[in-house]
Amino acid sequence: MALSSSSPIRHHASHRTAAAAIAAATLRERHASSLINIPATLSSLLHLHHERKPDDHSVGFPPPAIGRNTPTVSPKEDIFSLFPEIHGHADWSPLLNPLHPWLRREIIKYGEFAQATYDAFDFNPLSEFCGSCLYGRHRLLDKLGLARNGYRVSKYVYAMSHVKLPRWLERSLHADAWSTESNWMGYVAVSDDAESRRIGCRDIVVAWRGTIAPTEWFKDVQGKLEPLGDARADVMVEHGFLGVYTSKSDRTRYNKTSASEQVMEEIERLVSHYRQRGEEVSLTITGHSLGGALALLNAHEAASTIPDLPISVISFGGPRVGNVAFGEKLKEMNVKVLRVVVKQDMVPKVPGILFNEGLKRFEHVTGTLESVYTHVGLELGLDVSSSPYLKHGLDVAGFHKLETYLHLVDGFLSSDKEFRRNARRDVALVNKTSGMLRDELHIPPRWAQAANKGMVRNAYGRWVKPAREPEDIPSPYREEAQL
Amino acid sequence: MALSSSSPIRHHASHRTAAAAIAAATLRERHASSLINIPATLSSLLHLHHERKPDDHSVGFPPPAIGRNTPTVSPKEDIFSLFPEIHGHADWSPLLNPLHPWLRREIIKYGEFAQATYDAFDFNPLSEFCGSCLYGRHRLLDKLGLARNGYRVSKYVYAMSHVKLPRWLERSLHADAWSTESNWMGYVAVSDDAESRRIGCRDIVVAWRGTIAPTEWFKDVQGKLEPLGDARADVMVEHGFLGVYTSKSDRTRYNKTSASEQVMEEIERLVSHYRQRGEEVSLTITGHSLGGALALLNAHEAASTIPDLPISVISFGGPRVGNVAFGEKLKEMNVKVLRVVVKQDMVPKVPGILFNEGLKRFEHVTGTLESVYTHVGLELGLDVSSSPYLKHGLDVAGFHKLETYLHLVDGFLSSDKEFRRNARRDVALVNKTSGMLRDELHIPPRWAQAANKGMVRNAYGRWVKPAREPEDIPSPYREEAQL
Repeated sequence: MALSSSSPIRHHASHRTAAAAIAAATLRERHASSLINIPATLSSLLHLHHERKPDDHSVGFPPPAIGRNTPTVSPKEDIFSLFPEIHGHADWSPLLNPLHPWLRREIIKYGEFAQATYDAFDFNPLSEFCGSCLYGRHRLLDKLGLARNGYRVSKYVYAMSHVKLPRWLERSLHADAWSTESNWMGYVAVSDDAESRRIGCRDIVVAWRGTIAPTEWFKDVQGKLEPLGDARADVMVEHGFLGVYTSKSDRTRYNKTSASEQVMEEIERLVSHYRQRGEEVSLTITGHSLGGALALLNAHEAASTIPDLPISVISFGGPRVGNVAFGEKLKEMNVKVLRVVVKQDMVPKVPGILFNEGLKRFEHVTGTLESVYTHVGLELGLDVSSSPYLKHGLDVAGFHKLETYLHLVDGFLSSDKEFRRNARRDVALVNKTSGMLRDELHIPPRWAQAANKGMVRNAYGRWVKPAREPEDIPSPYREEAQL
Repeated sequence: MALSSSSPIRHHASHRTAAAAIAAATLRERHASSLINIPATLSSLLHLHHERKPDDHSVGFPPPAIGRNTPTVSPKEDIFSLFPEIHGHADWSPLLNPLHPWLRREIIKYGEFAQATYDAFDFNPLSEFCGSCLYGRHRLLDKLGLARNGYRVSKYVYAMSHVKLPRWLERSLHADAWSTESNWMGYVAVSDDAESRRIGCRDIVVAWRGTIAPTEWFKDVQGKLEPLGDARADVMVEHGFLGVYTSKSDRTRYNKTSASEQVMEEIERLVSHYRQRGEEVSLTITGHSLGGALALLNAHEAASTIPDLPISVISFGGPRVGNVAFGEKLKEMNVKVLRVVVKQDMVPKVPGILFNEGLKRFEHVTGTLESVYTHVGLELGLDVSSSPYLKHGLDVAGFHKLETYLHLVDGFLSSDKEFRRNARRDVALVNKTSGMLRDELHIPPRWAQAANKGMVRNAYGRWVKPAREPEDIPSPYREEAQL
């Protein structure tokens, strides 16, 4: 299809309109939060020293119907007028503190694209497809309930590396595993016509999978810098991250080309395809943890290859990736970076600090590493203690979980305000793979699990592991994208 | 309904017919086992020192289709001619070694009734129904795939006790739990007309739930004897087991009457109901672990109350329950007891030995306890090392699991023979709650788990704990049985 010439994708709103829109929306939100009164159980949680009377049943209950059943999908407003602000090409800061509701929703949208790389990843070492995506790309978003975001997955990306890193590579114990070298590392998606009109641009998204074991970061990220092969010779990045992004081997089925080559080929293909149709195209790269590091490497390469492409990175709990020169180069190339960081999370502090498991506290090493590795872009700082739903004890793994991040983004109003009282994102998601939710909510910790670990009863009543549906079986050939 | 006057339930086959039937069936079985050739992967497991060639994929695979898809339901032969032998009222021993196929199937049938008390038990402390049965009695057997056995559940039994015992009482963390004092402890079921004809009797079954933490047995079973209140004053039993069987309290909802009173009322009701119709009625009591102990106490009480009722107990991994006089009394009252015992399982050795967790070995205490507590009836001895499917390392929990027992019964031919080559019971069931299966089978350990711990997405996409269906919600009033 070709968008009508009156398509808002062509011309962006003036700054005056933008300012007005910000004011209006912020007002609406303040209004809403004063109107909505949240359920008794949850409000009781808002007072953390709430004394529970023995005969007080309200706390024991799960949140009542009103709290459990309200929709979790935010209203889809047309936000094209704010495209430059929301994607950071105009200055991001006026939308960050207080956080503009439209930007909050977009951050969560991209965060959920990153979360999809965990939710759809086959972690089961007894599966012959361990390390692959559980679903074919055509139904990935649908299976995860993300179809409503209005994007279509056009390609899967695979990565390999022999560099020791926080456990990111899952290996199958199966004799005939689909691949023992490579893992599914993420995907490329593109906004459909409706979503493109709504946000004001044909949006290409790259979502990178990360890793979920923060403590390993401090053992395994060696902080060894390596030249990126940039025009600027002094641009250096952490060699482990670069290894995942660039490794390839002819002996493998999925990495005869590197993750870098796979993703860039697809980005270039999509950009030229939509530009030929006269559309404005943007690239938004997202990822959590290691995925945040890969997002920056990917952004640097994309900016070098397609200089005039608007590129923004929205990362969650990402580590430092490169030296000062790397940061400068990204800025030169006009790559916009928004780093969402939970201040209790350790991963964004590496490389640069050591974590002493025994003492359970941080120890700064002689500043050298710290000064070498630098963060880039703007930071959206979140605080676990701001949420009345979360436990506030030390939970190294829980602090780093992407769902913890998304919950805190959903509740963030501004650095000086308390948790947003009318936050509507499903709180239960926090406990999907952690135990961060307060016990009073009665949401099981780490509840995400397959029924009977995937075993099913066949027609004879015998328990068997079902074969994967053909469309969900990974294939190095089927990865060629069609539009 | 009334059975036709020609019903086999009235008159049992003579011993000559019986002997003939035994011979014939044993011959059929030997014939079968020589005909059936089992899949390559499994036969390879039969040689425990099987060397795996690097290019040999067969071992890596899950069992091929033929092994995975064959029916797990044994043929239902009419066995009424052997009723007295199979229920032990004639001598059991000629059917035990070698184990008669008809008796093997009946042992497994009753064992699966006992297993149902675990499979349908709500262990989730976050559930307000923790400690209850997940399903209403009308669909319990159907939900567990046991409807094919041809029994109908007529009553649920609940128990309480303040005596410290191996963790058998699950408590809900919920403020308004269905009951904080009582647990679902088992059920009473009765054979339908077809099954009654097949086995030669209207069979009342009582299945008692046990406990699944063997190591606790050695801390918590104190081995304190207590008079049973039998006509014979010297009859004594372990006071903890008796506590579970007889405790009641007016302050509770489910134990205003004791488990003993609940189960006996139902047994007497059923016996008189079917005897009034001129049918022969039998009582078969089964249970695993603590459930095996309760089965004996139940059998003693039933025999004292209904002297002329044929009563047999088939217990799995049951502990010693009472003193010598208790055993003598059961024999006097003609209660037939078949104790299925895995020789590596520790629980049948208590009270009477101590288990040293640190040294991981048994230590006989100065024989006193041993000599006081005695086992009753016949023993069917099983050996973990007889099965080529099982790991043979020390697994204190795994040795005690009822599914391990049922697997070994299914493979048992005779004490001097190797595992039955044509055993057809689903091997995967062994790993339902243990990790006893050899890794080559690629069956996940402890695979029994609810999808997302029972969380489901509602219409709005929000994750919630669904309310139980009304017919599955326990009620102290609805337990009144109707026929």
